[in-house]
Amino acid sequence: MSSLASCIFCKIIKGEIPCFKLIETETVLAFMDIGPIAKGHCLVIPKYHAAKLADLPEDQMGDILPALTKIAKASGYEDYNILQNNGRPAHQEVDHVHFHYIPKPAGAGDKAGLVVGWPIQGLSKEDIQKAYDELKGKL
Amino acid sequence: MSSLASCIFCKIIKGEIPCFKLIETETVLAFMDIGPIAKGHCLVIPKYHAAKLADLPEDQMGDILPALTKIAKASGYEDYNILQNNGRPAHQEVDHVHFHYIPKPAGAGDKAGLVVGWPIQGLSKEDIQKAYDELKGKL
Repeated sequence: MSSLASCIFCKIIKGEIPCFKLIETETVLAFMDIGPIAKGHCLVIPKYHAAKLADLPEDQMGDILPALTKIAKASGYEDYNILQNNGRPAHQEVDHVHFHYIPKPAGAGDKAGLVVGWPIQGLSKEDIQKAYDELKGKL
Repeated sequence: MSSLASCIFCKIIKGEIPCFKLIETETVLAFMDIGPIAKGHCLVIPKYHAAKLADLPEDQMGDILPALTKIAKASGYEDYNILQNNGRPAHQEVDHVHFHYIPKPAGAGDKAGLVVGWPIQGLSKEDIQKAYDELKGKL
């Protein structure tokens, strides 16, 4: 199991820092976010320390989406976002993979829940074809 | 297999509408987003038609995060977001579960990639405890 002594989420996993624990399996932990952007904002993290999703082994992923789904069902909100950020420019604040479950309360607008900005690039079909060819060649 | 005749993603899965296909497994399909907010913006969708994550059976989830991870690795961007929206107020536009892989190009700022607004609620520990107690009781 990968773990990092200085990582706050690894400390939570080890029980060195308390959390509002919701779900624990062999490979994941789910708990309340203590800086929530909506009431009921939770985190699901793999126990394996990986900074970004691309660093997480596949065999450590299996319980993540089921845990998020259990929380979404229990939470009961109609509208919600699942968000996983990688890197400071992409809004990641703790360098241990974490998935946010963020309720979007009815009528909250920009005042609660995830606020999404969507700068459509207006790429042509040819631009997308080119991006596709590059990416497909590496898969 | 759940499928919906009027769903654009179900039509893509059936091959009735073309796509820039990246990955296909028994349960998921990955392809380029044709309205990208960054070059290399992709979607990973379950083949099973479910409008929201809470509607997706657990046995249809297993290939989703591995596919996103393969794309993240192949794409080669340092920074990126994984986003899955549920409901119009949460920015969902197609009512078939889809996970966005969105690169955050270096130096893009708000001009490309996901723009994240984060309205911290300033909840007290007691508020979070209360939200926890409510949620934990339903899990």
